[in-house]
Amino acid sequence: MTVRTGREFLAVPGPTTIPDEVLQAMLRPAVELYSPPLVELTDSLLRDLKRLFGTAGQTYIYIANGHGAWEAALTNVLSKGDKILVLASGRFGLDWGEAAKRLGISVEVLGGDWRRAVRPADVERRLRDDKDGVIKAILAVQIETSTGIANDIEAIGRAIKAAGHDALFMVDAVASLGCVPFEMDAWGVDIAVSGSQKGLMSPPGLSFVAASDLARAIHRNAGLRTPYWDWTAREADTHYRKYAGTPPEHLIYALRKALDLLFDEGLDNAFLRHRLLAEAVRRAVGSWQTGKVIAFNVLEPAERSDTVTTILMEPPFDPSRLRDYCEAKCGVVLGRGLGELDGKAFRIAHMGYVNAPMMLGTLGVVEMGLEALGIPHGEGGVQAAINWLSTSVKA
Amino acid sequence: MTVRTGREFLAVPGPTTIPDEVLQAMLRPAVELYSPPLVELTDSLLRDLKRLFGTAGQTYIYIANGHGAWEAALTNVLSKGDKILVLASGRFGLDWGEAAKRLGISVEVLGGDWRRAVRPADVERRLRDDKDGVIKAILAVQIETSTGIANDIEAIGRAIKAAGHDALFMVDAVASLGCVPFEMDAWGVDIAVSGSQKGLMSPPGLSFVAASDLARAIHRNAGLRTPYWDWTAREADTHYRKYAGTPPEHLIYALRKALDLLFDEGLDNAFLRHRLLAEAVRRAVGSWQTGKVIAFNVLEPAERSDTVTTILMEPPFDPSRLRDYCEAKCGVVLGRGLGELDGKAFRIAHMGYVNAPMMLGTLGVVEMGLEALGIPHGEGGVQAAINWLSTSVKA
Amino acid sequence: MTVRTGREFLAVPGPTTIPDEVLQAMLRPAVELYSPPLVELTDSLLRDLKRLFGTAGQTYIYIANGHGAWEAALTNVLSKGDKILVLASGRFGLDWGEAAKRLGISVEVLGGDWRRAVRPADVERRLRDDKDGVIKAILAVQIETSTGIANDIEAIGRAIKAAGHDALFMVDAVASLGCVPFEMDAWGVDIAVSGSQKGLMSPPGLSFVAASDLARAIHRNAGLRTPYWDWTAREADTHYRKYAGTPPEHLIYALRKALDLLFDEGLDNAFLRHRLLAEAVRRAVGSWQTGKVIAFNVLEPAERSDTVTTILMEPPFDPSRLRDYCEAKCGVVLGRGLGELDGKAFRIAHMGYVNAPMMLGTLGVVEMGLEALGIPHGEGGVQAAINWLSTSVKA
Amino acid sequence: MTVRTGREFLAVPGPTTIPDEVLQAMLRPAVELYSPPLVELTDSLLRDLKRLFGTAGQTYIYIANGHGAWEAALTNVLSKGDKILVLASGRFGLDWGEAAKRLGISVEVLGGDWRRAVRPADVERRLRDDKDGVIKAILAVQIETSTGIANDIEAIGRAIKAAGHDALFMVDAVASLGCVPFEMDAWGVDIAVSGSQKGLMSPPGLSFVAASDLARAIHRNAGLRTPYWDWTAREADTHYRKYAGTPPEHLIYALRKALDLLFDEGLDNAFLRHRLLAEAVRRAVGSWQTGKVIAFNVLEPAERSDTVTTILMEPPFDPSRLRDYCEAKCGVVLGRGLGELDGKAFRIAHMGYVNAPMMLGTLGVVEMGLEALGIPHGEGGVQAAINWLSTSVKA
Repeated sequence: MTVRTGREFLAVPGPTTIPDEVLQAMLRPAVELYSPPLVELTDSLLRDLKRLFGTAGQTYIYIANGHGAWEAALTNVLSKGDKILVLASGRFGLDWGEAAKRLGISVEVLGGDWRRAVRPADVERRLRDDKDGVIKAILAVQIETSTGIANDIEAIGRAIKAAGHDALFMVDAVASLGCVPFEMDAWGVDIAVSGSQKGLMSPPGLSFVAASDLARAIHRNAGLRTPYWDWTAREADTHYRKYAGTPPEHLIYALRKALDLLFDEGLDNAFLRHRLLAEAVRRAVGSWQTGKVIAFNVLEPAERSDTVTTILMEPPFDPSRLRDYCEAKCGVVLGRGLGELDGKAFRIAHMGYVNAPMMLGTLGVVEMGLEALGIPHGEGGVQAAINWLSTSVKA
Repeated sequence: MTVRTGREFLAVPGPTTIPDEVLQAMLRPAVELYSPPLVELTDSLLRDLKRLFGTAGQTYIYIANGHGAWEAALTNVLSKGDKILVLASGRFGLDWGEAAKRLGISVEVLGGDWRRAVRPADVERRLRDDKDGVIKAILAVQIETSTGIANDIEAIGRAIKAAGHDALFMVDAVASLGCVPFEMDAWGVDIAVSGSQKGLMSPPGLSFVAASDLARAIHRNAGLRTPYWDWTAREADTHYRKYAGTPPEHLIYALRKALDLLFDEGLDNAFLRHRLLAEAVRRAVGSWQTGKVIAFNVLEPAERSDTVTTILMEPPFDPSRLRDYCEAKCGVVLGRGLGELDGKAFRIAHMGYVNAPMMLGTLGVVEMGLEALGIPHGEGGVQAAINWLSTSVKA
Repeated sequence: MTVRTGREFLAVPGPTTIPDEVLQAMLRPAVELYSPPLVELTDSLLRDLKRLFGTAGQTYIYIANGHGAWEAALTNVLSKGDKILVLASGRFGLDWGEAAKRLGISVEVLGGDWRRAVRPADVERRLRDDKDGVIKAILAVQIETSTGIANDIEAIGRAIKAAGHDALFMVDAVASLGCVPFEMDAWGVDIAVSGSQKGLMSPPGLSFVAASDLARAIHRNAGLRTPYWDWTAREADTHYRKYAGTPPEHLIYALRKALDLLFDEGLDNAFLRHRLLAEAVRRAVGSWQTGKVIAFNVLEPAERSDTVTTILMEPPFDPSRLRDYCEAKCGVVLGRGLGELDGKAFRIAHMGYVNAPMMLGTLGVVEMGLEALGIPHGEGGVQAAINWLSTSVKA
Repeated sequence: MTVRTGREFLAVPGPTTIPDEVLQAMLRPAVELYSPPLVELTDSLLRDLKRLFGTAGQTYIYIANGHGAWEAALTNVLSKGDKILVLASGRFGLDWGEAAKRLGISVEVLGGDWRRAVRPADVERRLRDDKDGVIKAILAVQIETSTGIANDIEAIGRAIKAAGHDALFMVDAVASLGCVPFEMDAWGVDIAVSGSQKGLMSPPGLSFVAASDLARAIHRNAGLRTPYWDWTAREADTHYRKYAGTPPEHLIYALRKALDLLFDEGLDNAFLRHRLLAEAVRRAVGSWQTGKVIAFNVLEPAERSDTVTTILMEPPFDPSRLRDYCEAKCGVVLGRGLGELDGKAFRIAHMGYVNAPMMLGTLGVVEMGLEALGIPHGEGGVQAAINWLSTSVKA
């Protein structure tokens, strides 16, 4: 017997649930690519992305996924043979470093603990050692989708400044933008990248790069520039050049609608909503883990992200059986473990277009699954989540 | 602070949540009203409605709401001055009787307790008294949306037979068809009516009548017949006549898709799903009512319906405050109290396109609201629902 | 070989082409039926329908097709045994009369020429003869969809007044409202009916009735009233009562969007657009008919309607072969001949959401078909249409 | 006065009219990016793209526009300092060459006449001169969107073979794939690129590259490879790697639907349809140009493409006034002149989802505009198109 007929609940950390209005914004005829409303649409998006990234610099919209934006960020400011420092706390930071290697960049990895955030003091120490300024850029990830770790970008920015180092600070905000604060200029970030399909509640296919004036100055002499990613070319007046060719009309109409929804809610409200719902999930997981089998992947509570929670499951219990139960029996799709955590963890996303009944329904089904499968766990997870939310969301 | 951004949860007993595929089935150009695929579509719907109603008789699709179907049922078999017996257990039965009165029919109401189902024995006794066969028809409602009462149509049918009375048995299955078993022929029902917007998961605007051969024979001499509702006219070969004019193309495409979904799940599976989810809701309400303020409206557990639960709230506590909290803060829309229960109850629908996470999310938010508003209630409602479901939905 | 892949062109007189925005307005979750925005929506529609009908009286929205609205119009003001006069100029007027007969009304038909409009002088003469005022109502159709005849409602209204007769004047504006002027109050019309699926560019399923104060006064004593159609019941304050039950949410959202489009264009502009495009069609047909086989059904140019043109085709040539060619080879759906004209005519609609390229494309394909099928016809039909439009639509 | 209310006609050469079914294929929730149906979807697309390109080689789907595909084609097989030969017949060929230059490639342009196709004999001669095999690749465009020139790719392929040269033959089929035959393997093409938004009737945002075994062998030593575009990386088993990251779910569902429509029609039928409709446009333009002001841009009839027709307009007449009239008054959007033809030409696309009524409607409006604006032109353009089609599309 299943009780899954009804709305599917997608609780994976991207692509996330897309609001109906956003999907419907794509339901429109194509328009001529030089038409004035389309030009104005692009301008409005570039402007609003600056607001989202917290920068007075420049923003660029790429028809590409996040890996494309990574390549855009690297090729616009680096040259073959340059050295960079990758601050790793999960798979995606490592992958960005891999991409750099394949571009001919020399990569050093710092950290790499999958259960702890990057320590700013380690960054500062390493940079102080680099007396000759060999390191040209530092790559960090704000929220690591694989591990659920939230790195403190502001503190890392301070550490770089404290070290007196002038490497570019490049941050992946793919799994965080629109969900938690991001203040590029205030935090000393030079280049930030993000994508459409997570906190920004839009279909996958667009990614974004923001660049500070310093980054754009260094860009002029970068050896890896290519026509498709090139910032200078995209800063041309012609609308057509802003996308290096035909604009992705339907995707940008969708993004426009998604940003409208986000700004209508208010960024601060959205951040607070994410914090409350993330804490509800953590209260549930905290109750469940009073048994030995279930545990938070991230050891330090302060380093657990507000967009995704990675939950370890000890053998012989198998997270894929839990994921199967939730999906096949109840219509709830959980995230799987990635990289080192493949087969050892599952993930619950609380990112983007999520509210209290969606998260309580998701947690309720996870608890059903733990019980039905006989996976040892503490009781009262959802109850703890409800208690937390009822005191936080006052009448 | 709110945590309502995300999907809205509609937990009212009709119109209910419409599957995306059903909505999208309306997203199509109009077609010529004589086109063969449209004719075949109508035929397939009339056929499938017979299956749903459990009848070898005839079915009719009206462009109308349930009140229109009531009128169709009455005018096709009755004449001015006829007497009928209305079995009341809430507002909708009474309203159907009111409609009959306005058509010039003499109406006697039996029962009328808003907390108890109609007792078949009472029906039998009343019919035995009607030695001259003055009563031409008996009206009943399978599930009373206002009170949450489930009447035992099969038992009432047996009672009518036991009394040896030949009145037509007419049943409103608006809030039950597709959710709980309905066996018109087997139960001795002569006329059944339903609508598109509840268990059938479609937009409002269509309603249905099924008629037994006996009903159609009596129809021939009915004095209240009018062209729009008339069965005989609608049995013409011309497609156009089947709707007494232009067919409601978009609504029937939606209905087709909804019935496909229902049959794909399997009627028996859908009935079981409703029973499990209804019981989950009852477990939650049962936990909450250990306090004095919250109570089931329906006194007998066996008479609580599998599609909607009506919950009383004692003064000074106000159900509208709870409804406001759930909607404004969390995006969950609960049903209000109707008729005698206005201001004294709220309702949770578990009808149509509903699954475990939707119901657990809804219950979780109700429990949040009870807590946040300081409404006395027993704890652990959602927990009880989870426990029930985890033992019922096995891995 | 076909060249039909591409957009289908629906050139039938209802249901007509529905704008994408109108279809998409139905792509939304159901809302609770008592919610304030839904109530306001209904109010706005009732208000705007008054504007469309040109009346200070009352308007009613029925979940029904045009035949339902006919029944609503008749039952709200007449009693069994009343006598009415039907002014016929095609099938739909006759059908409305048939519906009246089945309600027990005595029907007299005036006119009935399928190629000429009703002559106001004939109406005046007949009414002067009815010295005892036996005739309770006069039924007319503004544009007869079957024949393409446009009756002069204003002149008929004057004729009734000139005869000093006090019968109610009831007009079917189904195939004309929103396309040509209609001024109910100014023209002395007491009851007007229309539907959603023609000039109002919406899906079928809604119909409308407008009633003057006189009609509403007479209504009070009408013997045929039934709960579903009843005006008094629908004038209740409760939103729910305005539709005699559950509102047709999706259809009224669609209608709202369609009326927005119509008012955005401006009613006068829409009327002029219809006139210009209708004349373009007539210029084409006029060129084609220089041969003997093709002819206008309506003999008098002044009586040809601005929403549909009915074109006769003489044997042995078969209009269904032309319709098949246009649809199967080119994706253009033409209207068939109805009633007396079955097998003898085809129809081109120019009604609702139509513009110059749609009509020129349609005419171009008809001309392709005439040529490809060897149907004798004059040349240069589309050329004549282009010439007309190029002088009417100035740069 | 305007007669533009109704469907907009988009007659620009990309993005083209998108079928409703294709747009609606995007109206779906996101799915988990590792889900098996999504993996199978990608496989089916890669397979079908091979069929479209006519190759047994490999195909790649990029989240990018055509410029991205250009970069993918170049970087996967070339190294800094390589020399290539660009065969130019309009703006897009030149732009592709420009992109190569910015990648550090040495570019020689052959031809460059905007009114004549590339002559295969010229190509053969130039290659025979390159005795040392300095030229590493030859770039050509099958249909030049700016000029409307159709290059004979098959003949150019033969010329390369005749010259005994082993440069890679790279072809831009963006404005031709799915509309006219393309036989990559049979014609000796090594790399072909295309995009979603023209003949493939899909939203912009996807582009495609096909590579022969020779191209893939040379790829191994290419110096310009980058992670995002890299073929080897995209040939990994993991679904995720096939898009170098998150798949563009909504766009590939749309593409799937579009290819289904195309294959349902049949590729040969689609090619024939394009040829017939293109010839209809040429008949119209041929009639108009009997005056002096209007002329085909492409001098040789055999070199006029079947997807877009570029039409010159002599001063003082201004093509932008014609475009404005057609759009503002009638809802038809024509293409503008590009590059050298800016201000001197307009373009009519007949590409992708187009049929007889769409093209006749478009031509009818252009003829209206020429007449209304007093632009000298021969008469009977649309008439000539109708005559042509009526003899080609037999009953």
